[in-house]
Amino acid sequence: MFRATKRAKEIEYAIRDVVVPARELERRGIEVLKLNIGDPIKYDWETPEHVREAAAGAVMESRSEYSPSEGLPELREEIAAKHRRQGVDVDAENVVVTTGVTEALMLIFGAALEGGDEILVPGPTYPPYITYARFYGARPVSYRTVEEEGWVPDVDDIRRKIGPRTKCIAVINPNNPTGALYDGKTLREIMDLAGEHNLFVISDEIYDELIYEGEFISPPSLAPDVPAFLLNGISKVFFAPGWRIGYMALRDEEGVMADVWDAILKQARARLCPNTPLQVGYLAGLRGPRDFLREAIRKLRERRDYAARRINEIDGLSVVSPKGAFYMFPKVEGCEDDKKFVLDLLHSKHVLAVHGSGFCPTYGRGHFRIVNLPPVEYLERALDRVEEFMRERG
Amino acid sequence: MFRATKRAKEIEYAIRDVVVPARELERRGIEVLKLNIGDPIKYDWETPEHVREAAAGAVMESRSEYSPSEGLPELREEIAAKHRRQGVDVDAENVVVTTGVTEALMLIFGAALEGGDEILVPGPTYPPYITYARFYGARPVSYRTVEEEGWVPDVDDIRRKIGPRTKCIAVINPNNPTGALYDGKTLREIMDLAGEHNLFVISDEIYDELIYEGEFISPPSLAPDVPAFLLNGISKVFFAPGWRIGYMALRDEEGVMADVWDAILKQARARLCPNTPLQVGYLAGLRGPRDFLREAIRKLRERRDYAARRINEIDGLSVVSPKGAFYMFPKVEGCEDDKKFVLDLLHSKHVLAVHGSGFCPTYGRGHFRIVNLPPVEYLERALDRVEEFMRERG
Repeated sequence: MFRATKRAKEIEYAIRDVVVPARELERRGIEVLKLNIGDPIKYDWETPEHVREAAAGAVMESRSEYSPSEGLPELREEIAAKHRRQGVDVDAENVVVTTGVTEALMLIFGAALEGGDEILVPGPTYPPYITYARFYGARPVSYRTVEEEGWVPDVDDIRRKIGPRTKCIAVINPNNPTGALYDGKTLREIMDLAGEHNLFVISDEIYDELIYEGEFISPPSLAPDVPAFLLNGISKVFFAPGWRIGYMALRDEEGVMADVWDAILKQARARLCPNTPLQVGYLAGLRGPRDFLREAIRKLRERRDYAARRINEIDGLSVVSPKGAFYMFPKVEGCEDDKKFVLDLLHSKHVLAVHGSGFCPTYGRGHFRIVNLPPVEYLERALDRVEEFMRERG
Repeated sequence: MFRATKRAKEIEYAIRDVVVPARELERRGIEVLKLNIGDPIKYDWETPEHVREAAAGAVMESRSEYSPSEGLPELREEIAAKHRRQGVDVDAENVVVTTGVTEALMLIFGAALEGGDEILVPGPTYPPYITYARFYGARPVSYRTVEEEGWVPDVDDIRRKIGPRTKCIAVINPNNPTGALYDGKTLREIMDLAGEHNLFVISDEIYDELIYEGEFISPPSLAPDVPAFLLNGISKVFFAPGWRIGYMALRDEEGVMADVWDAILKQARARLCPNTPLQVGYLAGLRGPRDFLREAIRKLRERRDYAARRINEIDGLSVVSPKGAFYMFPKVEGCEDDKKFVLDLLHSKHVLAVHGSGFCPTYGRGHFRIVNLPPVEYLERALDRVEEFMRERG
């Protein structure tokens, strides 16, 4: 009998824990209404046509070669230009195209976090921040985000949690799973804290162009001297999560990340490259018009408004209406065991959500995550069942 | 100043060490003849049309969703069926589609190798076996392959090197960088050794359908009781290395890998999935005809024959003619510093090869690797220069 490694045992994947019983129901022929998946393509969305055409064209032209390990040069240029437009001075040389943001996290953590190091992550957070920090023996420390204030980070809590082993603050704006969009004042305070304590920042901006109201601010734009990795990709804004094209861009004016960057490049070369033809699609997306987004945001806003209104009308539930991304993070009054809540909802009403503690055992507890991606009729059917469930639960 | 981690410092990438000076020459306007790249698309090859059409079709149909973490079910079925035809009892449930064989190695090593564990790798070997073992704190131990016998593994040497921390034997057949094809007797002895010492086997079969003469034997077919990972993908046989679609298939009749397999699946879920649309292309490739391969092998054989004859005519060089894959591993008589040899050749004649010690400091020394992918006219120009270089070197 071979034993799995300690590092691999650190991996948990909460989102999966609820998918297995849902599949079991489906195998028995039961229709499950799914509000759990952060994948627009599973509902009524598709990748914009000009993006698909560019990628399909690259496939047909046999763009099947290994790309440079860092990604196609013209794509890296376009990415750098995007960040310069958002007020962050990034050079194409400091961009590495990756197999999704997940791989970018693996490369950064692999290069920068030794066992025992700490990284401050939002509570609640996108789970890979926790998973991959632990995989490398580091300790993710969750900082509070305040539901009553629209799930905005509690800067004093961040300050209190900075210790001698803290290396990094991660900011996800707009946030998954809360849909919060952070204001400039809060972001500046976080960046200043990082500067004061010589931390680097990971700025996850994967939902940057999916904003319902308010303005997206790229946190590194507020503090040019603080070293920062900017993460983004094709998945969300261009509705192509299964293409696995993301990237990291490093802004490091003082060169303090040179050694870590070198280690990232080495890892990037060892794993060869991200896929080539779909990079060509992303390039077309970044260069092309954003008309499709206006219509997409209109639809998403309508679905958000409907879902938020319905949830806030249900006794025992409340939700902060998200300002960006496509997630909502409702609160269940007096609920201690949110995983049990989600599984009960699944088994009695066949509606699938994800339990909040899967995104943070402390600050996610008593909540669940749903998406506002499905059409209103789908949301209506699902939320009718949620309402019934809450009524019967009493 | 942030310091890179110890694990990332373990990464070396020999192939890259010679690419940087070559790029420098090109920047100065000098044409470099490249025999270093294991990427057919960089020469006169392309991905078969039916494979491209299937993938482009998937892109246009907006197959942009996350695939299951383990890969598309129909692709996993097809992969399992392929191995059953090659005499290895693999079930679709035991297949995980990955972002190239490289990712498969990362997942296996991440799940199975603790710090201090040892893995036996061929000397010389494909470098990621060394890189990723070290990345996880494990120790790659090179076993001898015997040039005089066609680069076939020295089974006694493997036996001698099995120690208390040895977990695994890796077999690459056909081999990169030597192009060796292993015989059934040798393979059976290796599998028996693994069985005797309770080791698992990694059988890297990425070149399995690129055979010039002789018969490909899948090592796990020779010992049904020995746990084995089979690695393969679209890169080489279907001429699409930049699509980043590979896989691992586990054959584990006695269930001794259950704990490791579970850890592999957890890692696979955490990184979400391989790209979806190009999986559809690979499926078409596996299901489709292999006519294109007959013609490809004819061309590769012609190029191999030409290159082998020329090299063996040059004073001071000799080469074992490869039986599979698309690499050759010539020996330089009396050469101690093969990296210097390769760099001298690059700077004086503008021909790029990879130094043998990059594939194994012990058993690769005094050699270099070239590919037999380019057309004969290209090989002729390059080998004329190599001949001149050897004459002038004296």
